[in-house]
Order: sequence, then C-alpha cells, then structure tokens
Amino acid sequence: MLIGASAVRGFGEAIYAVNPATGERLQPGFPGGSAAEVDRACALAQAAFPTFRETTPEHRARFLETIADQIMGLGESLIERVMAESGLPRPRLEGERARTCGQLRLFAQVVREGSYLDARIDPALPERQPMPRVDLRLRNIAIGPVAVFGASNFPLAFSVAGGDTASAFAAGCPVVVKAHSAHPGTSALVASAIRRAVELCELPEGVFSLLFGSGNTVGSGLVSDRRIKAVGFTGSYTGGTALMRIAAQRPEPIPVYAEMSSINPVLVMAGASAARGKAIGTAFAGALQLGAGQFCTNPGLILAIDGPGVDAFVAGAREALENAVPQTMLTPGIHAAYEQAVAALSQHDAVSTVVRGGACQGAYEARAGLFETDAESFRKMPELREEVFGASALLIRVANAAELGEMLEELEGQLTISIHMDDSDTADAAMLLPTLETKAGRLLVNGFGTGVEVSHAMVHGGPYPATSDGRTTSVGTLAIRRFLRPVCYQDMPEALLPPALRDGNPLNIWRMTDGQFDRR
Amino acid sequence: MLIGASAVRGFGEAIYAVNPATGERLQPGFPGGSAAEVDRACALAQAAFPTFRETTPEHRARFLETIADQIMGLGESLIERVMAESGLPRPRLEGERARTCGQLRLFAQVVREGSYLDARIDPALPERQPMPRVDLRLRNIAIGPVAVFGASNFPLAFSVAGGDTASAFAAGCPVVVKAHSAHPGTSALVASAIRRAVELCELPEGVFSLLFGSGNTVGSGLVSDRRIKAVGFTGSYTGGTALMRIAAQRPEPIPVYAEMSSINPVLVMAGASAARGKAIGTAFAGALQLGAGQFCTNPGLILAIDGPGVDAFVAGAREALENAVPQTMLTPGIHAAYEQAVAALSQHDAVSTVVRGGACQGAYEARAGLFETDAESFRKMPELREEVFGASALLIRVANAAELGEMLEELEGQLTISIHMDDSDTADAAMLLPTLETKAGRLLVNGFGTGVEVSHAMVHGGPYPATSDGRTTSVGTLAIRRFLRPVCYQDMPEALLPPALRDGNPLNIWRMTDGQFDRR
Repeated sequence: MLIGASAVRGFGEAIYAVNPATGERLQPGFPGGSAAEVDRACALAQAAFPTFRETTPEHRARFLETIADQIMGLGESLIERVMAESGLPRPRLEGERARTCGQLRLFAQVVREGSYLDARIDPALPERQPMPRVDLRLRNIAIGPVAVFGASNFPLAFSVAGGDTASAFAAGCPVVVKAHSAHPGTSALVASAIRRAVELCELPEGVFSLLFGSGNTVGSGLVSDRRIKAVGFTGSYTGGTALMRIAAQRPEPIPVYAEMSSINPVLVMAGASAARGKAIGTAFAGALQLGAGQFCTNPGLILAIDGPGVDAFVAGAREALENAVPQTMLTPGIHAAYEQAVAALSQHDAVSTVVRGGACQGAYEARAGLFETDAESFRKMPELREEVFGASALLIRVANAAELGEMLEELEGQLTISIHMDDSDTADAAMLLPTLETKAGRLLVNGFGTGVEVSHAMVHGGPYPATSDGRTTSVGTLAIRRFLRPVCYQDMPEALLPPALRDGNPLNIWRMTDGQFDRR
Repeated sequence: MLIGASAVRGFGEAIYAVNPATGERLQPGFPGGSAAEVDRACALAQAAFPTFRETTPEHRARFLETIADQIMGLGESLIERVMAESGLPRPRLEGERARTCGQLRLFAQVVREGSYLDARIDPALPERQPMPRVDLRLRNIAIGPVAVFGASNFPLAFSVAGGDTASAFAAGCPVVVKAHSAHPGTSALVASAIRRAVELCELPEGVFSLLFGSGNTVGSGLVSDRRIKAVGFTGSYTGGTALMRIAAQRPEPIPVYAEMSSINPVLVMAGASAARGKAIGTAFAGALQLGAGQFCTNPGLILAIDGPGVDAFVAGAREALENAVPQTMLTPGIHAAYEQAVAALSQHDAVSTVVRGGACQGAYEARAGLFETDAESFRKMPELREEVFGASALLIRVANAAELGEMLEELEGQLTISIHMDDSDTADAAMLLPTLETKAGRLLVNGFGTGVEVSHAMVHGGPYPATSDGRTTSVGTLAIRRFLRPVCYQDMPEALLPPALRDGNPLNIWRMTDGQFDRR
C-alpha cells in the first residue's frame, strides 16, 4: 500500500491476482490494510487538502500531466502486468493507457481554462434603492478528500489513475484509492507513478494514497471516515448501493457517485431495419463482444420493430457471433457469474437462444449469447431485465413505435440508449425522444454506446439505477463538477479574495459579471 | 387545495392560521389532503412534464413574469392576509413581496439567457487517428416534477411561489407545493395567482398544485411518490433529515435540497474591535433583531478576540437591545420554542446573561437575548452549539486568532460566517480564510448574513447540517442547477436535436464548442 510517501505492507489477508488466461496465481501477494491504514491515509489527505486545493491552475495542471508522463514511463512493465492480471489483449490495453493519460491531460486543460470555477461577480451598487447592493463574488472550491474505488473492467481508465481520480485531482481534492482486488499489481504500479508525480511537483504527500483490502473493512471504513467528503465508484448495483447506505448514515452524509448497472437498450426502427437490418446485426455483434462484453455500456437489450428486417438483423448477428472467437473474461468470478446468468437465460421458459459464440478453449473464456423473448414476458419477469455482465443480449420484437414507447416507459434508468434509424423513422424517433431523454444519460443514433469519448460534451451517467446520481457524469470534463461546491464572498477586500475573483481577472478566465459572460 | 385546475376541499383535519399578534384563530379552515390528493397532483405533474420542460425559453420566461404580475395583482388582500397570518409588519412584507416577484423576474432572465443549459458541442472528427470522433452534444434537461415545502419564516419568498418554486419552474419542472400550516390563507392566495398564470400562458394544468396537510401523510407521501424527482425544503434539522431519510429509502432515491440549521458565526477581530467595537455591537444588535431573529442567517454566535474592544462591543449591543421594542414571533409554537431555549440558556451554569430586550406586551412577543459563555464550555457542551430560532446569540471571548481557528474547525457547516476586521487584521483573516471556506457557503466582511441578495453570485447554502447538500444554493440564479441533469446526444440528426444544440445556435446562447465558449 502507499500511504502518502510511505510504502506500507498490510497485515490482512493477502490479495493475489489470477491470470484469467492461464488460471495462474500471480505473485506477489498484496496484504490488505486495516482501520489504522484508512485512518492514516485520511489524516494525510485532510492535511494535504488546504495546500492542494489552492495550488495554482498551472501547478495542478502540471501535476496531472506529470502523472500521465510517469504512467507512460512505466512502459512495458505496466502493460505486461495488466495483461497478466486482466487477460485483456495488448492493443486494448495500450489504447486504454492512452485514454487514461489523455484524460489526465484533458483535465489539465480544464484546470488551466478555469470556467469550471463558475466565477461570478455581482458588483456593489451603493446607490441602489431602496437598499444598496453589496459586492458579491462566487467561485467553486474543492469539496474535500475523495475516496475512489477502482473498477475491474478498466484496470487503467476507471481505476487508480482513472476518471474519478483525474477529475477529483483537477478539482483540487486529495484522493484515497481502494484498489480493485482483480489487479493489485497494476494498481501498485500506477500508484507509484502518481507518487512520483506528487514528489516531482512538490505537493504534500497526503494528496494520494492507495489501500488494499479484501473484505469490507477498508471500503466501508473509507466511506465512513469523517474526513472523506465524496466517493467515486464504478461497479455493481449491490456494491454501489451498499456505499450509498453507508454514506447516508454518516453524521455528515456525503455524495456517492456510483456508476452501477445498465442494459443499454438498442432500438431498431422499422425503416432502418428494412433498409439495412443485416448490417445493423453485424455491427451489433461487434459491439456486443468488445472487451468480452464487460463494458457498462454493453448493448444488453434490442427492441426491434418487427418485420423482415429483423430477420435480417438476426442473420447478421448470428453470422458474426457464431464465428466469433471466444474471449477471456476478467476474473474467474466474473466468468462464473456470466456462465450462470447465461445458463439461466438458456433454460428460461420464456427465452429462446438465437445464437451462441464458438466453442471455448481457456477455462475463463466466454461464449457470446443472443437470446430472444417476447414483450409480455419481458414486462412481467424482472429477472429478464437484469444486467448480465458480459457479451449477452436479449432481443424483443415489438409491433410498432407506440409499443416501443410503452416498453421504454417501464424501463429503469440507463447509461445509454441507441436508436438505429433512417430518415423515414424520424417521426417515430421524435415521438420517442422525450421518453429516451428521461431514461438515459446518452442517446446515440446509428451507433452503440460501447465507445465512450472523453470530451466536453460526454455524459457517462444516467438516472438511477444506472448511477446513484443522474445529475452528473463520470466521464468527460463535466465530471469535475462532482467534486466542487460554491462559496460566496461578500464585500471581501481584494487582499483576501482568491485570484479567480480579483478585479482585473488575473487568471484570465471566463466569468459572469452581473449575469453577463466575459473574460475581462 | 389546488390540484391542477381544480379547487379541491380536503377531508382531513382543518388547518387554521393563528394571528400571533392577537392570538385570534383566523377563518377559514383549510382541511388537509390525503394520499389520494398527493397521487392526483403527482399524476398531473407527471403528465405536464414533457410539455412544460420543452416550452420555449420565451414561453417559460413569460410564465414566470406572469406569476409575478398575478401576485402583485392580488394587491392589498394578500398583504393583509400575510400580516394577519405571520404578525410581520407591512414594510417587511411589501419588501418580501417585491423580492419574491423580483426573483421570478430574475429567473425569467436566466431562462432567456440560456447558459444554465450548459450547452456543449464536440463536433465530429472523422479524420482523427486512431479512431474518428463522433458528434457529441450536451444540454441540461429538467429533472422531473419537484415537491416544494413552504417555510414558516418567509411566507412569500420561501413559500408557495418562493425561490424553490421559481428555480424549479425556470428549469422546466412542474411543482407540487405542500403549504406551511402557519400561513394557509397566504398559500391559497399565491397558489391562485400561479394557477391564473398557468391558464394565461396556456400551460398544462399539472404544472402546479398546492396541497394542505397537518400531519406527515401529505409530506411523506409527496417525497415517496415515484413521479417526484427532487425536493426543496426550508425548515428545521428534524424536518429536513426526515425528508432525506424518506428520499434515500425510495426504490429510486432522489435529491433533497433541505436548508436546515445554522448559527452563523460572527468573528470580531482584534483591530476592528479596538477601532470600533461599540459600532459593531450596535450593528450586531440590529441584525440580531431583524424579523424577530427568525432568519436562517441570524447571527447566533459571536467569537471575539478578547480586549477592551469587546467590552465596547458589549456596551453597544446592550444599549441597542435593552431599548429594543419586542417583536411578535411567527407562530405560538415558534414563540414557545424560543422562550424555552432562551430560558435554558439563562439558567445554564456555564452561561451568563449579558442583556435582554425590553418587556413584552403581546402574548407571542419575544425579548432578544445576548448571552455569554467561555470557549471551553462551548467546546464541551453540544447544547450550547444548537441553533436558537429567534433573536438570541451567544458571545465567546477567545484569546487570539489561533484559538479562533481551532474553535471554527470544530464547528459544523454553516450558511454564513461574518468577519469584522480592519486592515490590521488582514493577516489573521487570511490565516482563518481556508477554514472559513470549508465551513460555510457565504463569507462576509464587515456585515451580517441577514440580508440575502437574490443575484447571480449569491450562495445560500453550506456544508451539512446547514443544508443537506452543500454543492448547491437555494437563493440566487445558481439555484436552477438543482433541478437539472445533463443529457448527451451522439450523432443525432439536426431534425431531432433540441434547439439549444442545433447548428447555427438558434437560441443565441453561450455554448462550449470543443472546450471554447462562444455564442456562434
């Protein structure tokens, strides 16, 4: 573990990663921490907070960029360890590393640009009648130390130096990470890169700590700790809601940003299906199998307006899937859960199997699966609406756009909804759009949600239970807002005002003066 | 009650307001509603939501302005009813009415200006390597129907058409108000004004409903209703945390924006106290007594660096308070709670009485009180840190700025903290400022928090337990953000895009394109 500047060995049960491609247990073991290490990491984070949150934009931006440099500097040793711990192929992991570093660099730009501070100035109006107006200035400040839980499925991009950590650092929040037990070695390597960046940028050691823990002690201890002011989590519904409960029961409740579960409906409209059903089916099969289906945005439900085009869709999907090479899943546990869920679907009275992927060789490889059920069964049987983590999807034929709308109304919140449509489907799509907007954080046309761009306009969020808090996103620059709160300064002398709010705009950022944006 | 377009008489226990100046029970009674009325109001709100949230900015702005016009149109009948129900003097209520209408008009400007939509466009980059970028566009949409609880202490500005309602309407959310039982007649009048505005603006009836209820059925029913997506509340810690628990236990938890309790520390620094201790004491006495001290921002704690200036402060406060005319409190219940809290302070072993206001005449009049205790008792005895709702404050002399800082560290979250300082206090104030920022939503220099400007840079919020959610404000234009969530549109054809995100910027609003603000 890394507690501030100190490498610390825990006394708890050791965590060993398993290479899912070979079943081999990987050395070394990483003994878990206890309440004492949680306390120490939180105390250091708290001590680092006043300094870190008031670092200059340039200083914090360079810190983010230095982390990216240091991660790249780990070179081959990092890639090899992640491959061993995750079973994911090299190109995917090199891409994920690029994305992770790109994310850190993008947040550096956000920090330099400064509009995330939401600086606002309402100048004094001493002559106003019947009462003069005081001078009021507002900026966002960092919320406090943040606890981040690494995710299994993106061992780099949603883990130790992933999106939650990058956005919390950008906001000015120290971070305490609980490593995911599936990739402790990767976590330790990335933590060492962050630690080096802390040193190189001469920041207080408590800006970052990494903890291991196999049970719940470390995780629940972190979320309960009075010094932690927000939580970032990507994982299961069970895990996310457990953290929400702990956070709500604290003497001071704190926000939990948990990205949890989504079946990401794919709507296939009549015109699109008639014109190019087969091509949509082929493209769907590709999206379904990306990363062995272990994406939060995996397309788990297809709602297709019935017609010959749907048969073409099925033909396209079948062809692509039955020849597909099975892929190794992330962990034995995830593989077992997938096999169980798919077996349950295969044997379900209301479900027929459309196609399964080719035969497996490795012990933890998984065959993709496309299943079909009818609308009525789907509406009646909640087990059919549950997320299957992996490359499994359920197809439902519906009579028309109106029935599609009714089914959507009954769905829970989602991360994404895709619409496959042609010009002739525009009226139907327009009719459905208001429902789609209330059901998901991202709506896509003629694509699949599996690629999540890290940019300014991305929303990787959505109404409960897709996430715990649909007012936010965990990917993209808007994610910084999760870790900020506004403070108003009234009649504060120039000498005490933060630079963002001083006269003359020394940071040269966008500000709102008397309700008007400017950069004066 | 008003359920959409229908005036409905409840079958529950009738609520009668009491004129606190006379003790007289006011006619008529307002029978409370039941689960059936909650259900009907929420169903109508849900039905109105798709239309209301997509009204044009101009349409929604005119709706807000029409409400203001209609409230003014109630004229003398409104002022007389509020005076009778609250015991508040006419000038204060005319001012509060102006503020309420001004708030509605300011939100109309916010809706027209459009930057609250946070429109962002990341144009497609088809040539990008290694992967093209899709077209991504983001805007905020209204979160859904909102439940608003009227507050006792601002029967207009924080009640039926108060800040929560105005900001929710501005965001595009239908509102169901539960009236405060202290001013049912005022609530019914204001509700009729909103109802007229709904009609005049040809909006769906479910945009607004008003419910009465004396027990918890209506309130908890509203917060539990699956169609309600957020809650606005101003009131007690007990009430606010009860709503938070209900909201957290729903199948779909929702945000509760509860503004609850704050003792609003006033720091008197050494230089200021030496130079003008008496004047600060006089000004403090004025702030303490505003509205009979029934403000969430009432200055309930003075932390003064000890010295002769503090004696001058006490002299100034004593002179002003002992000659002060007692004021009528809002309700018999509030009066009783105040009397009990002040009696407990008067009799507390660790507390001495500095001064009490002049003798009372009316039954529900209250005498202001300034008490003193020592730092050690204050730190040890939690009962001394509790908010007293009314014109009571506790003075503590501290040795120096360092001790002041230690005491502030131990305080809970606050709405406001005031610093009285001169130039010679700048170094001490700068040392304290980081702590102040983490403890309160608004920091004031040489003023008191009791005036809350409705503007762009205002924050009326603060860390728990001042509010349930320190990331937001309940006063000022930033309040609109509580009722919004972001949605991302990927590769959406122009015909389906909302106007805010179309090419050519038809709404002429500020947008972020590729990370740069512009109005193209």
